[in-house]
Amino acid sequence: MNFQPIIAKRRDGGPNTEAELRFLADGAASGEIPDYQIAAWLMAAYIHPLTHAETAWLTLGMADSGERIDLTGLPKPWVDKHSSGGVGDKTTIVLLPLLAACGITLVKMSGRGLGVTGGTVDKLCAIPGFRVDLSPQEMKDQAAKIGLALTGQTPNLAPADKVIYALRDVTETVESIPLLVSSILSKKIAGGAETVVLDVKSGSGAFMKTEEGAIELAKALAATGKEAGLNIRLAVTAMDEPLGQCIGNALEIREALDVLEGMPLSPSSLRFRRLCVLLASETLVAAGISKDDRDAEYLAEKVLTGGQAAEKAREWIAAQGGPLTLAEVRGSLAKAPTIQEVLAPDDGWVERIHAGTIGLTVIDLGGGRHKKDDILDLSVGIELFAPIGTEVRKGQVLARIHARNATEADIATTATRGAITISATPVATPPLILAQF
Amino acid sequence: MNFQPIIAKRRDGGPNTEAELRFLADGAASGEIPDYQIAAWLMAAYIHPLTHAETAWLTLGMADSGERIDLTGLPKPWVDKHSSGGVGDKTTIVLLPLLAACGITLVKMSGRGLGVTGGTVDKLCAIPGFRVDLSPQEMKDQAAKIGLALTGQTPNLAPADKVIYALRDVTETVESIPLLVSSILSKKIAGGAETVVLDVKSGSGAFMKTEEGAIELAKALAATGKEAGLNIRLAVTAMDEPLGQCIGNALEIREALDVLEGMPLSPSSLRFRRLCVLLASETLVAAGISKDDRDAEYLAEKVLTGGQAAEKAREWIAAQGGPLTLAEVRGSLAKAPTIQEVLAPDDGWVERIHAGTIGLTVIDLGGGRHKKDDILDLSVGIELFAPIGTEVRKGQVLARIHARNATEADIATTATRGAITISATPVATPPLILAQF
Repeated sequence: MNFQPIIAKRRDGGPNTEAELRFLADGAASGEIPDYQIAAWLMAAYIHPLTHAETAWLTLGMADSGERIDLTGLPKPWVDKHSSGGVGDKTTIVLLPLLAACGITLVKMSGRGLGVTGGTVDKLCAIPGFRVDLSPQEMKDQAAKIGLALTGQTPNLAPADKVIYALRDVTETVESIPLLVSSILSKKIAGGAETVVLDVKSGSGAFMKTEEGAIELAKALAATGKEAGLNIRLAVTAMDEPLGQCIGNALEIREALDVLEGMPLSPSSLRFRRLCVLLASETLVAAGISKDDRDAEYLAEKVLTGGQAAEKAREWIAAQGGPLTLAEVRGSLAKAPTIQEVLAPDDGWVERIHAGTIGLTVIDLGGGRHKKDDILDLSVGIELFAPIGTEVRKGQVLARIHARNATEADIATTATRGAITISATPVATPPLILAQF
Repeated sequence: MNFQPIIAKRRDGGPNTEAELRFLADGAASGEIPDYQIAAWLMAAYIHPLTHAETAWLTLGMADSGERIDLTGLPKPWVDKHSSGGVGDKTTIVLLPLLAACGITLVKMSGRGLGVTGGTVDKLCAIPGFRVDLSPQEMKDQAAKIGLALTGQTPNLAPADKVIYALRDVTETVESIPLLVSSILSKKIAGGAETVVLDVKSGSGAFMKTEEGAIELAKALAATGKEAGLNIRLAVTAMDEPLGQCIGNALEIREALDVLEGMPLSPSSLRFRRLCVLLASETLVAAGISKDDRDAEYLAEKVLTGGQAAEKAREWIAAQGGPLTLAEVRGSLAKAPTIQEVLAPDDGWVERIHAGTIGLTVIDLGGGRHKKDDILDLSVGIELFAPIGTEVRKGQVLARIHARNATEADIATTATRGAITISATPVATPPLILAQF
């Protein structure tokens, strides 16, 4: 097969056949199709988007372009839970042990952060000794023992996606819904999951800035996922304000442990805990563990309050090389030398906490990356105590900055103050979940 | 400047600014913009075509991306005559000496043939010793002496066009009118011409297969050429049947000399001679040598019949390393060992001679290239004696095949017979010029 007629068909609005899209995926992975031809096809595909069927063919082609993890032998259901990423999003760290404690097998690949959306792998690296370089065989062996495993390394998983993603990044073709969908789903399929629950974030702290965009992406993920044979559920969730109390790697591990261990929680952390229960519930129903939402929520609450989720988290962290108890994990987390408080300037209600600004401020503190090679300071970050809708008094502590020094703390304090708006009149608490498919 | 926002603007339908398009041309020439980014931009530009103004900016940017030939010191007008190429198109070989004999300075770059359209440089190589590798300085020196020079080498002329053309060829973005226009005109401008006469061929033997397509290209060339400051004239001419009697390199040189020297001509050659006079006339008016078409045609006929055009051709060929007399040129042309005639199968009128088929048949005989590196047999070709509209008798010689051997002659005879249709009822002679701008 020759790639040029495949480019010409896309250029003229498609369609491309299943064989053509598999040829593209294989040729991208092997390097046989030169990158300038892939780039031309990508631009044509951006302007003339793939249909759901075409997207499913490309997705399966990319999933088949390298190794596929075979979970045969592990107890079903085989589930992956994925978030499109947002500021303060540490749900994976709570959900994995919570769901494993309910009898689900989770073998998960996670990414490092880029932009304002922190990466789960970066957060877990705040736990001394925690390995994020498990091989496929190590993943399977660990999941067989304790029901879950997570790695940041995906050497030969969907290699076509790596090539295509890198080209999209430099040819202004990232923001194409079908190309986003195939990139996300190809890795899930190659990872062996049968049931996939996707949390698409919407707002200033997410890749999708608007609710309409997030819903469009979620619908396309649902349609293509079904075409590709996945048992898939979608939630579109709010990312206008940061998720939970903590933003910053070690701080977010502590907050996740607070939720898992049933510690007293701030209003912000309670909101985060509620999202974890809702997403767990959706997953339990999707995976056939619970018969409906009410049963599922009951089960999720039970393993959280009963300590089974915390015990599973302890097993997990220990299995991947971290400390043997959660108390030791807490004790081992890095702490920033300078802490500074941000006080409410007036009486009123919190009207807005701009997640994008908070995310950038944490990057500036050293907790995220401006460039791919930046080295993180895992100790720094921001704590937010009053979510949108909270009534506050002048002088009350709204936020706490964890910084490397006073200068950086001052800059972050100013930025954080600017990101928070106080209203003189009551403000409603925004919903956590905007839509579900 | 960064190229990615320039891609994004084109992707979203433009416009791109003059500075952006110059940045593209310079970056393509220098290699600073990677080819996958140029490819993405080209696909976006194919789908969202450049305006005339944008095309002019890109054209000037490409013209400025390398050396520009400066004709200062040579007598004006400085003219270039260009054909989009067709089967049997040897007009340049007649027009250059004809126009130089009228006092015009012509410094011309010509290409080798690819596809069914033979290249002027290939044809001139049929003259032993004829050099097609003149340097810019040699071109200027020769034009100062005799008024004209032609080379096939354009080492550093519009290097951006070379890069972009090569990428278009492999990314299915060749057939974009604005990209075609910028490619053609950038080389004319870099070559130093002020007046440009372009002959856009239309039909099965040309790049543009339909009259509508050719007229669209011609109009775009006219509009962009004016925007770019050229004195430009356009003719759309017929290429449904081959042009003239001869197709094949040495054969076409002989036919051009027949026209220049005033030899008795077949109906096919007369038709070719008429097109030369019409295009010469258009050029003489455009360049300000003649005040109107009638004056210009009179001047063109005068230098043809008076022998000045032939004398200029002699000077030209001698100056570029060929034999010193036209008789010696004729004597030195390679002759094919096998000649075979194609006879009319019936009484009637010639209704169709499919130029595309004839062009491919000459390539199969060895007279053109299937691939860039094929070596030509300059002696082979086809002569056609009865243009469309001619009344013929059964058994009359319609064509003569010049081949390397009997087998190839037989194949070409069959193909040529298939390319010619005889009608039982009279057929009108089609026009030579379809439109002028």
